[in-house]
Amino acid sequence: MSSASAAEVIIKPQDRLQERFSQVIELLKQHRLLEESLAPEHKHAFLEESLPILSLQKKLSELHPADIAYILEGLPLEERLLVWQLVRTENDGDILLEVSDAVRETLLADMDNHEILAAAKELDADELADLAPELPKEVVHELLETLDDQQRDRVRAALSYEEDQVGAIMDFEMITIRENVALEVVLRYLRHLQELPDHTDKLFVVDKEGVLQGILPIKRLLVNDPDKLVSEVMADDPVSFRPEEDSNEAAQAFERYDLVSAPVVTEEGRLIGRLTVDEIVDFIREESESEALSRAGLREEEDIFASVWRSIRNRWAWLAVNLVTAFVASRVIGLFEGSIEKLVALAALMPIVAGIGGNSGNQTITMIVRAMALDQVSTGNTTRLLRKELTVALINGLIWGGVVGIVAWQLYGSWSLGAVMVGAMTLNLLLAALMGVLIPMTLVRLGKDPAMGSSVMITAMTDSGGFFIFLGLATIFLL
Amino acid sequence: MSSASAAEVIIKPQDRLQERFSQVIELLKQHRLLEESLAPEHKHAFLEESLPILSLQKKLSELHPADIAYILEGLPLEERLLVWQLVRTENDGDILLEVSDAVRETLLADMDNHEILAAAKELDADELADLAPELPKEVVHELLETLDDQQRDRVRAALSYEEDQVGAIMDFEMITIRENVALEVVLRYLRHLQELPDHTDKLFVVDKEGVLQGILPIKRLLVNDPDKLVSEVMADDPVSFRPEEDSNEAAQAFERYDLVSAPVVTEEGRLIGRLTVDEIVDFIREESESEALSRAGLREEEDIFASVWRSIRNRWAWLAVNLVTAFVASRVIGLFEGSIEKLVALAALMPIVAGIGGNSGNQTITMIVRAMALDQVSTGNTTRLLRKELTVALINGLIWGGVVGIVAWQLYGSWSLGAVMVGAMTLNLLLAALMGVLIPMTLVRLGKDPAMGSSVMITAMTDSGGFFIFLGLATIFLL
Repeated sequence: MSSASAAEVIIKPQDRLQERFSQVIELLKQHRLLEESLAPEHKHAFLEESLPILSLQKKLSELHPADIAYILEGLPLEERLLVWQLVRTENDGDILLEVSDAVRETLLADMDNHEILAAAKELDADELADLAPELPKEVVHELLETLDDQQRDRVRAALSYEEDQVGAIMDFEMITIRENVALEVVLRYLRHLQELPDHTDKLFVVDKEGVLQGILPIKRLLVNDPDKLVSEVMADDPVSFRPEEDSNEAAQAFERYDLVSAPVVTEEGRLIGRLTVDEIVDFIREESESEALSRAGLREEEDIFASVWRSIRNRWAWLAVNLVTAFVASRVIGLFEGSIEKLVALAALMPIVAGIGGNSGNQTITMIVRAMALDQVSTGNTTRLLRKELTVALINGLIWGGVVGIVAWQLYGSWSLGAVMVGAMTLNLLLAALMGVLIPMTLVRLGKDPAMGSSVMITAMTDSGGFFIFLGLATIFLL
Repeated sequence: MSSASAAEVIIKPQDRLQERFSQVIELLKQHRLLEESLAPEHKHAFLEESLPILSLQKKLSELHPADIAYILEGLPLEERLLVWQLVRTENDGDILLEVSDAVRETLLADMDNHEILAAAKELDADELADLAPELPKEVVHELLETLDDQQRDRVRAALSYEEDQVGAIMDFEMITIRENVALEVVLRYLRHLQELPDHTDKLFVVDKEGVLQGILPIKRLLVNDPDKLVSEVMADDPVSFRPEEDSNEAAQAFERYDLVSAPVVTEEGRLIGRLTVDEIVDFIREESESEALSRAGLREEEDIFASVWRSIRNRWAWLAVNLVTAFVASRVIGLFEGSIEKLVALAALMPIVAGIGGNSGNQTITMIVRAMALDQVSTGNTTRLLRKELTVALINGLIWGGVVGIVAWQLYGSWSLGAVMVGAMTLNLLLAALMGVLIPMTLVRLGKDPAMGSSVMITAMTDSGGFFIFLGLATIFLL
């Protein structure tokens, strides 16, 4: 160990990655300058082995596939494809797995079937299954033909599960042992394997039929007397999962019990795969991202360098929904045009009632959705929760409504207008609380994701409801 | 291994947990019935050893601390404290670490200093540091006095870092070895330790001064010839972190390189702790939750059984901000009361312009915030991004504005009103795109979190801006 390597360890990984990214950008810029300076007829032959391109190739060959994926994500399409052509190696498959769906599509579009096949061949069965839905059909077909029976069955099995099921994120790289052998034998067996799969923190103990009997944590293998039998040392009640189980529940169990890997078994207890924490981390990150995106009304993650047309399509669905709800709110106001004509202050005050109702309803719904995700809401406590939310809304309505009412009174010199504001604010906040509890609960009862679209729905309710309540009260009491 | 244990492994962990939770609820209900049936004078003596209470105690003693934490989270205050009194054991500290901040507060409020001290004594230095900020000052003081020098220094060190720094989530349970010994010796040393810390997937190789020289993955220890030296087998360029680094960057590196544990070193390369994937998973989950909460305007996670008063305080700050922005929007409308009086259709149409602008702006800002979190936005590509977002806004504005304009024309029989709608929608969507890019970038330049409050700000802009643009255009062209 020279002092150079000791110095190396103290560079922050993020800084190192940023630095490499800048180097790539710099080399691409040099390449571009060179390209522009050349006469068209020399371009092709020369550019392929230009100095910047050669250094770039060298640089890229030293990088982790995940780092190359990161760099590809950050580059505009043209540069991205240039870099992609330079890295085409046996790591292609790994890089394709690491990039986001949107970027993967741009990379695959640039490859012919032969190249895709070559990249995919290097992958494990579970990784192939991840990639398969996005590959051309004929490539998948050809790929399956090149696999042996076990691998093909595994790919087929993994493909048969929904995206959010345990079966879709499990892998098959588990090491199995028998319970009636000594630890010494296990140690020798491992040495014989020469390489262990990543995230091997435990070995799986199975019987002749492949039924899981227990697990042998590597920790126990290391600290126990090698003469002991596996059955004496193993844990016989491990946390295990079923392939059809919801990945979200598996993620919660990984978090709760701090797992690194866990067995996946059939109903009869036969070991068929394992879950590892790296897949769980990816799953958690994807879940929270897709939640943030869908809450904002984006259909999917967006490549920031996506074409304008793609971006527009990605954003249309929810803008259309929003357009409909906005029209409904507009027609509600239309009902009261006569009142507004008589008292134009109503037009200026009505967005306050609707806006604060929407904000308050979003607070309630976020809280309830979160509690539901943690399984804290059961039929037993719905009434209690609803009562609490309504009380909070009543108090907030009276207090904030009071503030708004006083300001309205001062602005427009009418205490009765102020009183109508207080009443409307209170009623709209109560509506927001009621809907904030009922919307996610109804969605779950209908088998839907409680977060999906809940923000649009609650805002639609509090907008139309707020306008109706405020203008209705004003029409009754002021005109 | 009887067949019973093989059967046990196929129960889903989540179902098992739910079942236990139901059993606890059932026993609590029986206890409550018993309590109500007793005459007041018998209550105290009898209840403490009633049958339901004894079964409950037994049930709880078999549960993992994380499962008890889960059950405590789901119980209303009174039942929660009853259960908490029953589980008071050496696991108290672990349970306190597992529950949410809001629930922890209710549990600590129920303990005297002596009990808190007893619970905290069982914890490791890093766990103590996690808990310390929420404990009474005198307890922390007394606790530090009972620790040995090394432990005390570790607690102090961990406490000296911000919540989002690596130093605050690292632990100190690393196993260190020297590079000039044989693997055989390492294996004997581990056996001698009798127990290894959780998440030990690698050993840390240090020199006499404690400077990190490399890491020895357990995998390599297991598969290599025991006669080899550590220096021959170790990896000498591991991913390592600095204690003052941002935890978010560490989380990204864990995701990218699929790490289970990683060393934390000082600027000089001295090993001072390690990060483990379980802490990273908790960190990622907490980050995404607090982001969802702050986007909805909640100050912190809320115990769903929190008192009404606590809930109101948790939600006030943002409702107040929202009130101010709603008033500004209201005053913008106030400027145009004369126009609305002349053409009351404006009052019904203006929320459409504002609402769709808000929705579109939120889409842009969510996309940009996500890209910034992944470090994909640099000064080099800002202009390109802005140009793309403005193009998307222009096209969406013309198309959706066209739809809205046609409907307005049909409804109110005025093509010029329709034309004003098209113009106002387009301009407001352009404003939304501009602000959706500029707000998060400005926040970051000011050293703030780009997600924080961005939704309120963009909505405030598109509301006031939308009203101003629409009513302004209408006043110029229609009146």
